[in-house]
Amino acid sequence: RVDGKRLWDALMALAQIGATEKGGVKRLALTDLDRQGRDLVVGWGKAAGMTVTIDQIGNVFMRRAGTNDALPPVMTGSHIDTQPTGGKFDGNYGVLAGLEVVRTLNDHGIRTEAPIEVAFWTNEEGSRFVPVMMGSGVFCGAFSLETAYAAKDVDGKTVGEELERIGYKGTQVPGDHPIGAYFETHIEQGPVLEDADKVIGVVPAVMGLSWYDCTVTGMEAHAGPTPMGLRRDAMQVAAQIIPEVVAIANRYPPYGRGTVGMMQVFPNSRNVIPGEVKFSIDLRNVNDELLNKMHEEISAFVENTAAASGLSIKLERVSYYPPCPFHPDVVGAVRSATAKLGYSAMDVVSGAGHDAIYAARLAPSGMIFVPCKDGISHNEIEDAQPGHLEAGCNVLLHAMLERAKV
Amino acid sequence: RVDGKRLWDALMALAQIGATEKGGVKRLALTDLDRQGRDLVVGWGKAAGMTVTIDQIGNVFMRRAGTNDALPPVMTGSHIDTQPTGGKFDGNYGVLAGLEVVRTLNDHGIRTEAPIEVAFWTNEEGSRFVPVMMGSGVFCGAFSLETAYAAKDVDGKTVGEELERIGYKGTQVPGDHPIGAYFETHIEQGPVLEDADKVIGVVPAVMGLSWYDCTVTGMEAHAGPTPMGLRRDAMQVAAQIIPEVVAIANRYPPYGRGTVGMMQVFPNSRNVIPGEVKFSIDLRNVNDELLNKMHEEISAFVENTAAASGLSIKLERVSYYPPCPFHPDVVGAVRSATAKLGYSAMDVVSGAGHDAIYAARLAPSGMIFVPCKDGISHNEIEDAQPGHLEAGCNVLLHAMLERAKV
Ligand SMILES: NC(=O)NCCC(=O)O
Ligand SMILES: NC(=O)NCCC(=O)O
Repeated sequence: RVDGKRLWDALMALAQIGATEKGGVKRLALTDLDRQGRDLVVGWGKAAGMTVTIDQIGNVFMRRAGTNDALPPVMTGSHIDTQPTGGKFDGNYGVLAGLEVVRTLNDHGIRTEAPIEVAFWTNEEGSRFVPVMMGSGVFCGAFSLETAYAAKDVDGKTVGEELERIGYKGTQVPGDHPIGAYFETHIEQGPVLEDADKVIGVVPAVMGLSWYDCTVTGMEAHAGPTPMGLRRDAMQVAAQIIPEVVAIANRYPPYGRGTVGMMQVFPNSRNVIPGEVKFSIDLRNVNDELLNKMHEEISAFVENTAAASGLSIKLERVSYYPPCPFHPDVVGAVRSATAKLGYSAMDVVSGAGHDAIYAARLAPSGMIFVPCKDGISHNEIEDAQPGHLEAGCNVLLHAMLERAKV
Repeated sequence: RVDGKRLWDALMALAQIGATEKGGVKRLALTDLDRQGRDLVVGWGKAAGMTVTIDQIGNVFMRRAGTNDALPPVMTGSHIDTQPTGGKFDGNYGVLAGLEVVRTLNDHGIRTEAPIEVAFWTNEEGSRFVPVMMGSGVFCGAFSLETAYAAKDVDGKTVGEELERIGYKGTQVPGDHPIGAYFETHIEQGPVLEDADKVIGVVPAVMGLSWYDCTVTGMEAHAGPTPMGLRRDAMQVAAQIIPEVVAIANRYPPYGRGTVGMMQVFPNSRNVIPGEVKFSIDLRNVNDELLNKMHEEISAFVENTAAASGLSIKLERVSYYPPCPFHPDVVGAVRSATAKLGYSAMDVVSGAGHDAIYAARLAPSGMIFVPCKDGISHNEIEDAQPGHLEAGCNVLLHAMLERAKV
């Protein structure tokens, strides 16, 4: 069993770096604070006897040798960068749970056959630099190192420069690093476990997502002198599409999701009929066939709305991640470790993307969720219970031991 | 008959001051450009033999003596400040049409019994300083000089300071200036005249307006992991209210107007369910009883939507101008001048507020509309035909002569 207090103390110590007044953490990728966080975790890893490798995109791998170092490592990890208004647990928990596993193995003098590795991936959040899940994305070949290096923050600083500056541009070629199996522990970022009063979420899959920008173009005109019948009101047409996003999600239960999270109105003046309204659409489902049907339905609805209203509407897909089913062996290892330890558990499909979906392209992978308060994340008030974090870490320990063999 | 070319040349000369690349004008109230514009118009007024009075809020009155100066003047006017993306005609036309009337009277050596005055009111647009229609509002006692002086622009500069700086803080007490009748010529700012192919709009009234801020408060949460049934999505609830704004307007034809022109979404991120959506509602009608019914309907609808959705919704009225019927004598003078001159004409209720609604609180008032291209104003592409501007000015001349007596 892991030491829950030691895990909690490590989380709280790392949360000091970039701590915000409201109790959250702001430690954006590749800033000085990210360097301080990385240095602290790397120091802990070395103190626990691990050797450290850094690749060219700044992914860090901390390795505890196995009795048979020819075997590919059993890896766990996550990320330590945060959202601008981030919390103490998102990502950090997955990394420090891995460290706690190694510390526990050290305490008990347990040797594993396969090596154990604890990784943290660069810029998972995508807040400072897009695309999101950058380090794991380059690692698995989803996009190139050059693309990642060229990404700029709002001040025009690039990932390449910033990696160099903080001293985390390593030499290993990304992906040139075998993985035997990959586990990631994470707070759920949703309300399902809390709602069902369960401690462990076994994650069979991650939902696929389709992101769109929808732009309705009408004609801006004065709100007073323009009769209702002569208007081309982009806001009113947008308001016809917005409820349909939810209706489509509800037609594909239980994993259909539909969200309009972002909107910009032009000229955004109270006495001007909007000439242009641009908004985002986020559709998700765990089954690609269903996600595809959702895509077809929103496309058809937008087309019909354009024809009926006479306004021009552009629907542009800006991102697409297919659903990612995890490997039955890894999911099975999580399930049996949970059962062995006697924790209450349920399957929870991840609604959010994680580094594990990229790791899954290279190795059998899976995830372990623990509840977070009110399902809230990406928020300074993000919170989780020490007992739940400890439980998730115990499951990780036993699942990794099953794969790495004692 | 007025000199249409001279009127057009004056409009084009004034439009040079603050001219924009796209052919519009940016001459915000109380800027150096406003001073240049004021100086130009005042210079023209003096050259036409008028005496100039400036009041404490910077309203400028240019007076052509009558044969009986004890009579209150027959006044016309408008404003010469513009929107940030303003055009050449909005406001400027009303002032320069007045100047052209005086020039025409001078050309023909016509003396009127009552004096004739051409006024321009400070800060009608309200773009740099709120409230809108500031000069005429202070003049008629709608709000105090102190309130107006204290109004600040985004840089913290006050109306009082800026009036002083540009040399247009006069000494006359606002309102201490009798008016016999008030006429205002203006581009329609709507598509009705153009649509009906008429040259002159006789304006019987200005619509009243109710402005609201509506704030829907839900709970922000991650768009992926949060099941549809556990959401408190502020955007979806806002989208229920937006179409009702139009439905209400359509239930009170022909002058009901309903517009949602402005929206802010928090946190406005594509993968976060909106926790708060704030939007504006603009309701108008020409009849106060109907406007009041519209107010009651939106209030009830918002209340019902809050109850049905379980989200909190705040509806706050932020502005209210009652409908303003113009004086039958002044409207009649416009109507008979139009008939005498043989222009095609129709009644057009003004959907937009104008300085004339404040003048109407003190004296019999009315307005004359001319078409503007595609009904567009508050836009650099605002346009109007020289022949229409000339026609409106001829109507102004004859209507004023009827009131001022030759
Ligand atoms: N974990 C997480 O927030 N990923 C960002 C991409 C997504 O919205 O799923
Ligand atoms: N003329 C004009 O645009 N007035 C502003 C107030 C309104 O929206 O009616």
